[in-house]
Amino acid sequence: MRDINQPPITNHPSPVTGVSEFDLIARYFTRATPQAVLGVGDDAALVAVGSGMELAISTDTLVEGTHFFADADPRLLGWKALAVNVSDLAAMGAEPRFATLAISLPQVQEPWLARFSEGFFECARQYGVDLIGGDTTKGPLCITITVLGETPKTAALRRSGARINEDIWISGQLGNAALGLAALQGKITKEGLESCITALHAPQPRVELGLALRNRASAAIDVSDGLMADLGHILERSGVGADIRFDLIPRSTLLAARMDNDLGRFCLLAGGEDYELCFTAPPRMEPQLLEVADKLKIRLTRIGKISAEKGLRLLDGHGKPMVVNFTGYDHFA
Amino acid sequence: MRDINQPPITNHPSPVTGVSEFDLIARYFTRATPQAVLGVGDDAALVAVGSGMELAISTDTLVEGTHFFADADPRLLGWKALAVNVSDLAAMGAEPRFATLAISLPQVQEPWLARFSEGFFECARQYGVDLIGGDTTKGPLCITITVLGETPKTAALRRSGARINEDIWISGQLGNAALGLAALQGKITKEGLESCITALHAPQPRVELGLALRNRASAAIDVSDGLMADLGHILERSGVGADIRFDLIPRSTLLAARMDNDLGRFCLLAGGEDYELCFTAPPRMEPQLLEVADKLKIRLTRIGKISAEKGLRLLDGHGKPMVVNFTGYDHFA
Repeated sequence: MRDINQPPITNHPSPVTGVSEFDLIARYFTRATPQAVLGVGDDAALVAVGSGMELAISTDTLVEGTHFFADADPRLLGWKALAVNVSDLAAMGAEPRFATLAISLPQVQEPWLARFSEGFFECARQYGVDLIGGDTTKGPLCITITVLGETPKTAALRRSGARINEDIWISGQLGNAALGLAALQGKITKEGLESCITALHAPQPRVELGLALRNRASAAIDVSDGLMADLGHILERSGVGADIRFDLIPRSTLLAARMDNDLGRFCLLAGGEDYELCFTAPPRMEPQLLEVADKLKIRLTRIGKISAEKGLRLLDGHGKPMVVNFTGYDHFA
Repeated sequence: MRDINQPPITNHPSPVTGVSEFDLIARYFTRATPQAVLGVGDDAALVAVGSGMELAISTDTLVEGTHFFADADPRLLGWKALAVNVSDLAAMGAEPRFATLAISLPQVQEPWLARFSEGFFECARQYGVDLIGGDTTKGPLCITITVLGETPKTAALRRSGARINEDIWISGQLGNAALGLAALQGKITKEGLESCITALHAPQPRVELGLALRNRASAAIDVSDGLMADLGHILERSGVGADIRFDLIPRSTLLAARMDNDLGRFCLLAGGEDYELCFTAPPRMEPQLLEVADKLKIRLTRIGKISAEKGLRLLDGHGKPMVVNFTGYDHFA
């Protein structure tokens, strides 16, 4: 689309920046797209979908000042922007295939773009994603990615599949990313929390786990907004409730040392951005799930049970109810 | 994703705005999605693709201050944001099916959202699009839409298909949207240009025409950046050149009255935002194309020919070369 403010100009390189929008796309956002029928450069990309397969499609936006700090490392930002989207595919049990990238930039800074592109394509390579299109525009720094993944028909892991008496599982450990954010916000000292800051900046979406959970898990979600909120989405969509045990929720030793204060408990229960998977499965699946954990070298922890009684109840180590006064997160609240 | 600045908060309605992000999505961006396997509300949407079909996928962003004025009518903006994306599908000869919508807002203004949503879904209904997902975040006003359409395998209209001696065609007329923009920018008086301002604000993507051009046209593009630039993309991708006749380029009587000045010629040749289709076809297709024009009640005009000689040459009514000093448009030039 045309810019409403700019004078009639040409596709030729600008005397100021030395580059055009087309140059930028060619230089930083055009790579081979072996999985696509047609990649970047036409009115639309073209993709084929395997016989018996469905496409899972998800969109996430990162805005400067809202989702990341203005001085964020562009390489890590490129990684993370794609990774948080890929995580949604992981939570559906879908295999990542394609992405489109829309990026608004206040001005062209080629070193920034080069680093952003490097991080983006590192993540794309890691998870088998072809960048098939997008848009590059002038505006406040804002990144919107849409990812497309494939899943066999009826195999996708929906939020709505949780059934009464199923176990509730968590991959990895929760709360480190939120602890890293608290450090960056200056709420606590950064010292010794480098691994938490890395967890925040370079999430590793659980794609392999998501694929392994097909036909094993009944419902799944990735923990982006915090355990209480995200498990809450499963409960709401499935029309059930749950009891979870605070002491069983997997946490790092760094976080475990902070369980006597509000911030520590907040990070564990409502921190978000860990991009671990929270899923439910019938008790008979336990042996298979432990085999998956062993094979993928991912810790899987059972933290509670789905119940007929609506609501999410947090219990202490003695099975007694605990009260928490944060349950989620909302951009406009 | 979590907001880096906000305190731990809840999914419950905010005391200030009375709504949560989830409420907003439920209220303004959740409609039936009869074409999808699974719509809004999970980690990803799920869609199936017809046997023998491919998906065409395109993404376009609209940023406040870059692509639209801060006081733009939200209903028209909702229409246009989707329409410009649908236009990319039209230019591929694809049938619109699905869209995701990512919208960043500085704050929640429900009347604005209600109007935006109204315009968006008017366009969605008109063109058969299901909104299957997206993201609502806090940030500068920025709208990114990804559309998905279906096309039979090998039937898509690519930019790369133009062959020597083919005719170059244009649908409708060019330049009115740019004339409308010039009026809004205060370069010319608005008086008498209401239809041009409407052309700018409420583009009508040529979906039916795109479908009719399958197996008839060899290459196609939608005129979003101006005829010279967009035809230039076809030429570049196809490795050919073209001669076009200035006097044959279809224009409104409003614009025809301005051919003696730079602005008028600019609007016609480089104005953009008309979202008409520019396509090429072998001469033997002429009778079929005129039938299509008649059936769809869309004017189709032959404006020139594809040539082996690279470059785009503009000729006057006597076949003599004309010189123009604007050939396109670039966000960062």
